Amino acid sequence: MSSGQPIPLAEQLIASQFSVRGADLMIGGVAARDLADQFGTPLYVYDAGLIRRTCRDLAAALDGFAEIHFSIKANPNPAVIAVLLEEGAGLEIASLGEFRAALAAGADPARILFAGPGKRADEIDAVVAAGIGEIHLETEEEIGRVAAAGARHGRRVAVSIRVNPVAEAQGGAMRMGGKPAPFGFDEEAIGPVVDRIMALPDLDLQGVHMFAGTQILDAGVLATQWRHGLEVAASVARHAGRPLRAIDLGGGLGIPYFTGEMALDLAHLKSEVAALTAFKQAEPLIRDARTLIEPGRYLVGPAGVYLMAVNAAKMSRGQRFLIMDGGMHHHLAASGNLGQIVKRDYPIVAANRMGEGAFEPAVVVGPLCTPLDTLARKAMLPAMVADDLIAVLQSGAYGLSASPAGFLSHPAPAEVLVDQAGARRIA
Amino acid sequence: MSSGQPIPLAEQLIASQFSVRGADLMIGGVAARDLADQFGTPLYVYDAGLIRRTCRDLAAALDGFAEIHFSIKANPNPAVIAVLLEEGAGLEIASLGEFRAALAAGADPARILFAGPGKRADEIDAVVAAGIGEIHLETEEEIGRVAAAGARHGRRVAVSIRVNPVAEAQGGAMRMGGKPAPFGFDEEAIGPVVDRIMALPDLDLQGVHMFAGTQILDAGVLATQWRHGLEVAASVARHAGRPLRAIDLGGGLGIPYFTGEMALDLAHLKSEVAALTAFKQAEPLIRDARTLIEPGRYLVGPAGVYLMAVNAAKMSRGQRFLIMDGGMHHHLAASGNLGQIVKRDYPIVAANRMGEGAFEPAVVVGPLCTPLDTLARKAMLPAMVADDLIAVLQSGAYGLSASPAGFLSHPAPAEVLVDQAGARRIA
Repeated sequence: MSSGQPIPLAEQLIASQFSVRGADLMIGGVAARDLADQFGTPLYVYDAGLIRRTCRDLAAALDGFAEIHFSIKANPNPAVIAVLLEEGAGLEIASLGEFRAALAAGADPARILFAGPGKRADEIDAVVAAGIGEIHLETEEEIGRVAAAGARHGRRVAVSIRVNPVAEAQGGAMRMGGKPAPFGFDEEAIGPVVDRIMALPDLDLQGVHMFAGTQILDAGVLATQWRHGLEVAASVARHAGRPLRAIDLGGGLGIPYFTGEMALDLAHLKSEVAALTAFKQAEPLIRDARTLIEPGRYLVGPAGVYLMAVNAAKMSRGQRFLIMDGGMHHHLAASGNLGQIVKRDYPIVAANRMGEGAFEPAVVVGPLCTPLDTLARKAMLPAMVADDLIAVLQSGAYGLSASPAGFLSHPAPAEVLVDQAGARRIA
Repeated sequence: MSSGQPIPLAEQLIASQFSVRGADLMIGGVAARDLADQFGTPLYVYDAGLIRRTCRDLAAALDGFAEIHFSIKANPNPAVIAVLLEEGAGLEIASLGEFRAALAAGADPARILFAGPGKRADEIDAVVAAGIGEIHLETEEEIGRVAAAGARHGRRVAVSIRVNPVAEAQGGAMRMGGKPAPFGFDEEAIGPVVDRIMALPDLDLQGVHMFAGTQILDAGVLATQWRHGLEVAASVARHAGRPLRAIDLGGGLGIPYFTGEMALDLAHLKSEVAALTAFKQAEPLIRDARTLIEPGRYLVGPAGVYLMAVNAAKMSRGQRFLIMDGGMHHHLAASGNLGQIVKRDYPIVAANRMGEGAFEPAVVVGPLCTPLDTLARKAMLPAMVADDLIAVLQSGAYGLSASPAGFLSHPAPAEVLVDQAGARRIA
């Protein structure tokens, strides 16, 4: 590694999140090769210990400022959700299907929030009947539907207003504020929405929900958005003429995917959080509101590995190709086809040949009959042959559930959770 | 419509492929509203009559030059496959799962071809055991695997060599030839591959398989590629020193998705085919080979409609949004996230309010909590409200099976086939 080059992300991640024994990548203490042999490939592996550690480190940095609600859209496997429930996290869901996954994981309905721009009447009815903790209102239609469901089930439903903020902090990969948006109500027109909700006896207004971006790696940007969320909450409370009970500052905490990106600096976040806590305490109408954030990717992304075996290795016109038994049908994001403007390579390693020098750059592709099924465009890997293993790191969030698993009708990959007790299949 | 403007594609398609009765879009003679009421939304509807007509028109244009093998990756629903089997089509598959779908549809294994860059040993074994018609070889590893499977099952396996052509005809949206590629063997290095296959007693070399692009709308481009395919076949036959028995010229026949794109001109194709037939007849070593093409999208794309209901309509900062009950989780391609460089709108119509003038441009989005879930960026639609219907046309290929159906854990849409006998649920 020459001194002017950034350290490849894969190398950093192996050092900070995984380990190596001999030639083997170890995931939560188990060799990737053993996992492949036991469960077959392709395979998703999640390291429960790493999820726990990530959650605890984040909670420590938040220092009591905000509760953590896991956004299960990032990984809806009930066994993964259960790990976060054990750590004391609440949950954020975006569909009735996710509500059922949450219950299957053992969640208390009262600690579940329901957000999303297009909640169906049947979804609202089911979660109200089951005693969900809070519903975030995003459209006029939803206000009516939730009030009707509350009346039907004899429950006063706790709701918050999702706000589409006027200004947006910079830095997220995918910003959701400041522009016209289908999400929530425009901040500048929130007054009549507050009035309408407060006039409905079946709704119990808790507070506001903000969500201004995703994949934010800069603690300062995050803090700026959270501060704006507190300001909006205070403004809504003044309009309502009473204190708020809950402020949901959203998710958006990012993880590094590409060499050169740096993980969120938790020490920096902790210092920002101290200032936010002081700010909140100084505002009587929000001082006693519980504050929460809803990270998804941040909690589970680093803990997931997508493990594939080489099906064939070939040269074509001077270019080396490794054809894998896994691909975009299981991991759309890693193929660059899930919202990326520029396709860049996820961090990948030769999971059974760690420590070998790079042979020559390889294009790593999946088994589908389309050039879209490319998982790495210029991977520095050893001279691999059939049955060698490649691991795609940072794959625990928006992996399998965000992929076209039926495309070309290949079998679903197993999902495996590695925990102190060993490795067990969870799907 | 001012005279200088192109006719919107949706309007053209309604006129040529569908009909309107009152305010209702009719699909195969059934009102979209009735389908929505009977099967719920969101919903995929396929018009069997339109599939049949498309297949017959293409066969007529091919005029005996080539057999049609349906590439079932475009739509692996067995009921859809069965329609094409009834029309006499063979099948092209790309996985063991697709082989099983083909058998479920009633296919004769002998009329199935297996292509794909990463066939697994267990897939090869299963299809050889079942008596598949032909396997297309794409890697050295596969040559060994197929020969071993043939020996194991006591069958001499019919194989063709997939060739990665040196030159590529221009015009496809996604070209697969001329460059380094994971698909097949490089044309300029094909000799030793032919020799190796001919030396293996368990393999029975039939011919070659070419596939140079997808989404080709120009009959001239297609004919250029097919002619090159015939030339490669003749060259391989000369190297082999005997006539070939099969030449697979691939798929790649496109359909229009965007205003300004024109459907493939079948009259033009027919005239090109006459010249290709003459060319083939003049080459003794390929004259008696059966020729086949493997369209997928072309056969089923126009016949499919994705039907959604409005969940909510809202204004945000001067922009109208229609939030639908369906979205990118069912129709990734229409959201622009399946390989599109520039995101453009698929043809959409207000399926229960046909003939009404446009109100103002709308952004049509799905229910997922992400800006990626956008199905139209500037749709000219009436003033729609909750429960109104929107139909996304040209959705019969690479629709549901190419989409991340588990993303945010919404229910799977029903799939419905409309045929002379009426509408029936097929998934």
